[in-house]
Amino acid sequence: MPSKSLNIGMIGYGFMGRAHSNAYNRVHNFFDLEYQPVLKAACARSETEVQAFADQWGYDSIETDWRRLIERDDIDAIDICVPNNLHREIAIAAAEQGKMILCEKPLAMNSEEGEEMCQAVEKAGVANTVWYNYRRVPAVTLAKRLIEEGRLGKIFHYRANFLQDWTIAEDLPQGGAALWRLDVAAAGSGVTGDLLAHCIDTAVWLNGSVKDVNAMTETFVKQRQHTLTGKVEPVGIDDACAFLCHFDNGSLGLFESTRYARGHKALYTWEINGENASIKWDLHDLHRLEWFDHGDEGKLRGWRSIHVTDHGGDHPYMDHWWVPGLQIGYEHSFVHQVADFLQSLATGQPCSPTFRDALETQKVCDAVLNSAKNGSWQAVG
Amino acid sequence: MPSKSLNIGMIGYGFMGRAHSNAYNRVHNFFDLEYQPVLKAACARSETEVQAFADQWGYDSIETDWRRLIERDDIDAIDICVPNNLHREIAIAAAEQGKMILCEKPLAMNSEEGEEMCQAVEKAGVANTVWYNYRRVPAVTLAKRLIEEGRLGKIFHYRANFLQDWTIAEDLPQGGAALWRLDVAAAGSGVTGDLLAHCIDTAVWLNGSVKDVNAMTETFVKQRQHTLTGKVEPVGIDDACAFLCHFDNGSLGLFESTRYARGHKALYTWEINGENASIKWDLHDLHRLEWFDHGDEGKLRGWRSIHVTDHGGDHPYMDHWWVPGLQIGYEHSFVHQVADFLQSLATGQPCSPTFRDALETQKVCDAVLNSAKNGSWQAVG
Amino acid sequence: MPSKSLNIGMIGYGFMGRAHSNAYNRVHNFFDLEYQPVLKAACARSETEVQAFADQWGYDSIETDWRRLIERDDIDAIDICVPNNLHREIAIAAAEQGKMILCEKPLAMNSEEGEEMCQAVEKAGVANTVWYNYRRVPAVTLAKRLIEEGRLGKIFHYRANFLQDWTIAEDLPQGGAALWRLDVAAAGSGVTGDLLAHCIDTAVWLNGSVKDVNAMTETFVKQRQHTLTGKVEPVGIDDACAFLCHFDNGSLGLFESTRYARGHKALYTWEINGENASIKWDLHDLHRLEWFDHGDEGKLRGWRSIHVTDHGGDHPYMDHWWVPGLQIGYEHSFVHQVADFLQSLATGQPCSPTFRDALETQKVCDAVLNSAKNGSWQAVG
Amino acid sequence: MPSKSLNIGMIGYGFMGRAHSNAYNRVHNFFDLEYQPVLKAACARSETEVQAFADQWGYDSIETDWRRLIERDDIDAIDICVPNNLHREIAIAAAEQGKMILCEKPLAMNSEEGEEMCQAVEKAGVANTVWYNYRRVPAVTLAKRLIEEGRLGKIFHYRANFLQDWTIAEDLPQGGAALWRLDVAAAGSGVTGDLLAHCIDTAVWLNGSVKDVNAMTETFVKQRQHTLTGKVEPVGIDDACAFLCHFDNGSLGLFESTRYARGHKALYTWEINGENASIKWDLHDLHRLEWFDHGDEGKLRGWRSIHVTDHGGDHPYMDHWWVPGLQIGYEHSFVHQVADFLQSLATGQPCSPTFRDALETQKVCDAVLNSAKNGSWQAVG
Repeated sequence: MPSKSLNIGMIGYGFMGRAHSNAYNRVHNFFDLEYQPVLKAACARSETEVQAFADQWGYDSIETDWRRLIERDDIDAIDICVPNNLHREIAIAAAEQGKMILCEKPLAMNSEEGEEMCQAVEKAGVANTVWYNYRRVPAVTLAKRLIEEGRLGKIFHYRANFLQDWTIAEDLPQGGAALWRLDVAAAGSGVTGDLLAHCIDTAVWLNGSVKDVNAMTETFVKQRQHTLTGKVEPVGIDDACAFLCHFDNGSLGLFESTRYARGHKALYTWEINGENASIKWDLHDLHRLEWFDHGDEGKLRGWRSIHVTDHGGDHPYMDHWWVPGLQIGYEHSFVHQVADFLQSLATGQPCSPTFRDALETQKVCDAVLNSAKNGSWQAVG
Repeated sequence: MPSKSLNIGMIGYGFMGRAHSNAYNRVHNFFDLEYQPVLKAACARSETEVQAFADQWGYDSIETDWRRLIERDDIDAIDICVPNNLHREIAIAAAEQGKMILCEKPLAMNSEEGEEMCQAVEKAGVANTVWYNYRRVPAVTLAKRLIEEGRLGKIFHYRANFLQDWTIAEDLPQGGAALWRLDVAAAGSGVTGDLLAHCIDTAVWLNGSVKDVNAMTETFVKQRQHTLTGKVEPVGIDDACAFLCHFDNGSLGLFESTRYARGHKALYTWEINGENASIKWDLHDLHRLEWFDHGDEGKLRGWRSIHVTDHGGDHPYMDHWWVPGLQIGYEHSFVHQVADFLQSLATGQPCSPTFRDALETQKVCDAVLNSAKNGSWQAVG
Repeated sequence: MPSKSLNIGMIGYGFMGRAHSNAYNRVHNFFDLEYQPVLKAACARSETEVQAFADQWGYDSIETDWRRLIERDDIDAIDICVPNNLHREIAIAAAEQGKMILCEKPLAMNSEEGEEMCQAVEKAGVANTVWYNYRRVPAVTLAKRLIEEGRLGKIFHYRANFLQDWTIAEDLPQGGAALWRLDVAAAGSGVTGDLLAHCIDTAVWLNGSVKDVNAMTETFVKQRQHTLTGKVEPVGIDDACAFLCHFDNGSLGLFESTRYARGHKALYTWEINGENASIKWDLHDLHRLEWFDHGDEGKLRGWRSIHVTDHGGDHPYMDHWWVPGLQIGYEHSFVHQVADFLQSLATGQPCSPTFRDALETQKVCDAVLNSAKNGSWQAVG
Repeated sequence: MPSKSLNIGMIGYGFMGRAHSNAYNRVHNFFDLEYQPVLKAACARSETEVQAFADQWGYDSIETDWRRLIERDDIDAIDICVPNNLHREIAIAAAEQGKMILCEKPLAMNSEEGEEMCQAVEKAGVANTVWYNYRRVPAVTLAKRLIEEGRLGKIFHYRANFLQDWTIAEDLPQGGAALWRLDVAAAGSGVTGDLLAHCIDTAVWLNGSVKDVNAMTETFVKQRQHTLTGKVEPVGIDDACAFLCHFDNGSLGLFESTRYARGHKALYTWEINGENASIKWDLHDLHRLEWFDHGDEGKLRGWRSIHVTDHGGDHPYMDHWWVPGLQIGYEHSFVHQVADFLQSLATGQPCSPTFRDALETQKVCDAVLNSAKNGSWQAVG
């Protein structure tokens, strides 16, 4: 039984607001932890919307002004689930109030903002983490362990892509609560901050820092009606972005992201090729890890499809769920991040990725966008 | 917001006790329903165990005698999650107390017991359902819709298997809380009631009644130490079972189940071949449905791998979850069954499979076991 | 350079006549052997047809009466590629003429005929083989090696199916040169002799003898127009057949074949589950072998997809072809069988499967058809 | 029956010499064509080697000096299967002798050489083609047809990679007959000319011209012993190369090739994403085409795995082979190219890709290598 409460103040009620709330609600049923999250307050500008959200997820109270929320004494941690252009202001103010912060990714609109946010939480000394949830998909965590065990040897290649197809229709509008990801003023960038940021976070975690990048971006649909103004306005985001890069460890990277890859809903895949072994993963079948081990006997070498659902400590996090062979899904990565965050409060260790960790991804994103603008190699950081 | 409560009394705290409790806890976050389940009481013989279970899942109270539980006025529905040999007695007593019943599968030790249970709930007029949860995996439900729309034409073949490998070790004991599925006194049968029952339930639902069967069973490990007695005792269950059958619609069936198929943790697969189209499904990647449509243009015919995660009503249940491309897992099938059960209370319609529906599977299982014993074709029912 | 010729007399010019001719023509380009096949004569009743066939494949001469062919002194070996009802008479006569015989599968119409054929070749002391070509798909041969090395341990299960969909249309006629496989008078049986015979041959080769069987057959389309008579006549073949069996080694078998499985063109798959490892194979991707090794480290266990194209002796036959990663196809299994047959002439060892080997499959087929007729378990042999 | 002969003079006897010889030998058995290739002479410097090669493949005669070969009156066509640094001189001399030329890819060491070669064959008016054999894999040809039928709509993305792992070992030498591909003097470049050239040829064929490129290359192993000199020498080739590009049609391209991707033997894959449909292909399973059609009914949309083995004109080239469901392999792409080349002689139409067609790929390769050197975008041509 948890002996301590962690009172959550949630800002936002969209897709991520739901995913995080679900994680807070479920963690206690599956993990034995000292801390128990309590859904204390949900906050959004629309009272109607936020009340409905609070009712559905079991928040004790609501606020319609985030400044009031962060001032409340009964709130321990602020969860930021609003568009990217609001992260900085809220995070800094919350840190100043001494609140812990769990911030949705990407950390900020750019690395300057990100740096300010890092300094704010570090100065305040508050626990902080960014929701790069894919680190806690069991198959991805397993890959991390295999790499840390040195099983891959020297790394030659890392490639990742994140392919979607939901913005192909030209009559899809931009902006507003549902489509802020298409509005550069709210999102800062298009697929770079939304999708590539995930790819970069995983890559840096698994393969170390990126040294330099060379990118191209494209905006296929040049103008779209804006939901808020009702007017047809230029589209400021990148619809697609691809880049080459060098990692500090000497390996080559290749990244691509788009919302115009017909047939792919959320195909985030990555692959890493080492001297001794290679690993692949695919979000569309997130419970599997593909593993090739050159150390296997010659005639029996092949890619193994590992169904990452085993117990007994073999597969990260899986002891907490059902029985071997029964898969979990997307949402569980958030439950794992909450569990690890709560654990980090008990141990006093940071919960990766911290704001500072996430700033590295932000810097790569900045370099990518700059490179695309300049058509040249761009150093990171 | 739900306006009515449904007070649950849970008997048992094992794997299924957890899966059902999770479903009750989560359904309200994802489905808008008139009824809201309330975890009122958990019951098991061991006070320590059941208290820990109640704490973890949020049950308001505990009982150590199921007879006391079913007599409580504040309990609306009894959830039976104990070994098969206890289903009959509890279900009949609960029905007599006017309780709704959600019973774990298989319904009973045999169809005689099952028939008694059906008569009890029908006489009492209480809502009842059996947890054949795979009907509510979205991909499986989608298959059901496609079949009901008549897209397959005349059916020629149905084949299913459920392959596991967890009992190969000869030093695995039988019996007790953890391993009652290996003890014929508690389970009634081995893979037939445990695994084939799932295959049969899905088959009957998708393809109609089974007319006759011809089966073989095998017990590979003839004796195992019994957890409770500490003695090596004969193994009474079937380790493997396979059978041929005819369906009423003229199609041929082929079923197999085993716990000795090295490499398969819980590989439940089925395939149905019709004149115009065929469908395949696989529990190890439960979020996908394989579809072959002979109506497709000749040069482009191929098996389609449908990632069953779309919204807008395209894919059953999925509107309630995340966004297209993001998979759900095993446990969600239970959430869906709770949602449908609650909905059935609102509409007054039965929630499939009822005890009576599940009795049909029990009869097929009986015929299978008889056929294996006699070495001959056996009519069902 | 080959130093000896083997003069081939081919009877028949259909699908198998082509596949074998191709094998004879190609073997020398890829294998260094003492013997070189020479396409000496092709034989069929229609002079026009057989002349065209001879021109296309490079046969030196033609015959229109197989009796004349087997009497020719310049013919060393007879290749029998005619419908099943002609195998016996030709084979026995050819053996009496001292000719080697390469006979298309199945060996005969039934095991009585097969026994006569065995006695004829054994009495004559002529080399003989039956074209169960799948034994020489490199992936299948690799599986054989793995099993012989004892890597699987005790075997629990063997399952195989051969699924096609080309006879679903009711207006497809039966009989004649193109469709003799649908005419029971020419074929002896339907899918049992045509498709299951392949499954059984591989099974017996990989897993040893079958003890007893329990089968069902079905004829979905009860009558079809006959190509030769022009009349609608009853269909005498089995459109589908499935059976349960026990192997001598104690493992359980499950076999199915049909021409009514919409979506499958020639899906021959088999899987074998042992105590320590399991293997799967699939004709639709015949260059791959799926391998699961329980001896792999726990967290990294998974099915390996082995691309069976390696050199250096790792993958059977592949050193003779291209470079690793480049797949061969269906026809190469026949080239391999010719290479092995020629090699067997040099060594004096039999070329598996001999008539006697193939008789075992015939006996299983007979038992399967009898069991289906009687509805009971039938011992083999 | 072919009425005309085409006398082939083959230069080289390596992997490609074998693949082309096999194609010449087999084409008549499967295609009805006016022209029949005759293996007239094989040529290489080593008399022993070329005689053995001629014996194995059935060449009538040998030459040890290619200049003598191209002067022979009984030779109609020269097939160039020697290292890249010899293509130019032989091709120009052969054209001057009025010989048709079938040249192994890449066309030349660079586009200057390639342009000279084009002018030579165009001036001489001789038939010419370059062995970019993957255009004639039936699945790839089918893709071409689908694109030409306009089924994809506006194209957004094209991505391709060619991944191998055979040069990871540092003690692998460079140069000589077996390893000339690692010697920059013989090969001109590393993976760019060897592997990416294939990717580019297919891309240009399917998706039109490339406008500009931005590349990076890497040489992981900086020095290797040279087979001929015995000394450790610097490695001049690119071990890996990746590039971004724009196509003329506005789509974005992403290409990667390496010989350091552990676990991949010859994984050439490409994918094209259009507004209405997408297509994928993979050399490791070359008989399949993956097709996604957005026009499919919403709930049934999925990637179709098309087993490209159908007859009746549905699948390119396949009517000439076996029966549906039975796959062909790598080598058949060469047979198809020979068939098409022979057909082109009959019709007088060029056989794609001509030298001029292949020059476009050469120009892209040049731009890629330049871009990698300069670290900047490079226009093609």
